Amino acid sequence: MDLKNYIANVPNFPKEGIVFRDISPLMADGEAYQYATQKIVDYAKEVGAEMIVGPEARGFIVGCPVAYKLGIGFTPARKKGKLPRETVAVQYGLEYGTDELHLHKDAIKPGQKVLICDDLLATGGTMVACAKLVEKLGGEVVGMAFLVELLDLKGREKIKEYDILTLMEYHEDEL
Amino acid sequence: MDLKNYIANVPNFPKEGIVFRDISPLMADGEAYQYATQKIVDYAKEVGAEMIVGPEARGFIVGCPVAYKLGIGFTPARKKGKLPRETVAVQYGLEYGTDELHLHKDAIKPGQKVLICDDLLATGGTMVACAKLVEKLGGEVVGMAFLVELLDLKGREKIKEYDILTLMEYHEDEL
Repeated sequence: MDLKNYIANVPNFPKEGIVFRDISPLMADGEAYQYATQKIVDYAKEVGAEMIVGPEARGFIVGCPVAYKLGIGFTPARKKGKLPRETVAVQYGLEYGTDELHLHKDAIKPGQKVLICDDLLATGGTMVACAKLVEKLGGEVVGMAFLVELLDLKGREKIKEYDILTLMEYHEDEL
Repeated sequence: MDLKNYIANVPNFPKEGIVFRDISPLMADGEAYQYATQKIVDYAKEVGAEMIVGPEARGFIVGCPVAYKLGIGFTPARKKGKLPRETVAVQYGLEYGTDELHLHKDAIKPGQKVLICDDLLATGGTMVACAKLVEKLGGEVVGMAFLVELLDLKGREKIKEYDILTLMEYHEDEL
């Protein structure tokens, strides 16, 4: 199955000059969603994941079925003000600005092996933040899995100490 | 399994006088997450769901594994500005203010049977908006599934024309 057939390429979103890789057709197709999820499930087993972390909100769409299939937990990494209990926080820069991500303090157990899932690897800023959060809580980041990698943004260089799975790779001008 | 053992009750969040029912411990426990999801999967089969719709962001956590398990699609209902392609929109009031929800115009096929999933049934405003969006696109809302129902907010009255599943029910003062 060529998953790229299920990505909508949207020029000039969210701003001029960016081609947005929209995963929603992939999620809307049951077969494609199962296929992509199974690839990440296989990878999660290989790296021994005991917990899935996903940044809001598309990281939930990618990570939740992986956790469910494996019978392990899912923990959301959320923007400021969204998690109701005590959190750890990290500031980070992302493709179109800056932001702050949080995890509940009890979300990760010390030594727990964590796979971080998201739809897209862009500049890598979100992933660096997620990894720092997991590590602040004593967890071990055993891998990062993405549906799409935007090669020209070189996010992979920022997270080169981690093991990475990407299912689709795009150059900026690919349509 | 008593799922209430996996809910964190957080008084005075997001504002004074509200007891927030935090589902994150449930999601972080692989066994509880599978158990709750399976209940919704069984219900989805019963009502003949062909597509799952979930409002951002916790609706993704609830709905995505259901779609995955059934091999059907998942469509996110998102706030303004988040979906990159042409959308339909509905304004709505929610427990702590007002907002706008969108679906991609191609998200639902005419006649498609849709199950809407969310973590919480509060005032029902989000659900009314989701149902209107699905119906604008010609879909049929065959059910709504929630982990938690806040009984005192009487959201159920706003959506009484729909079939509803809730896994846990709370009165305001239950701790």
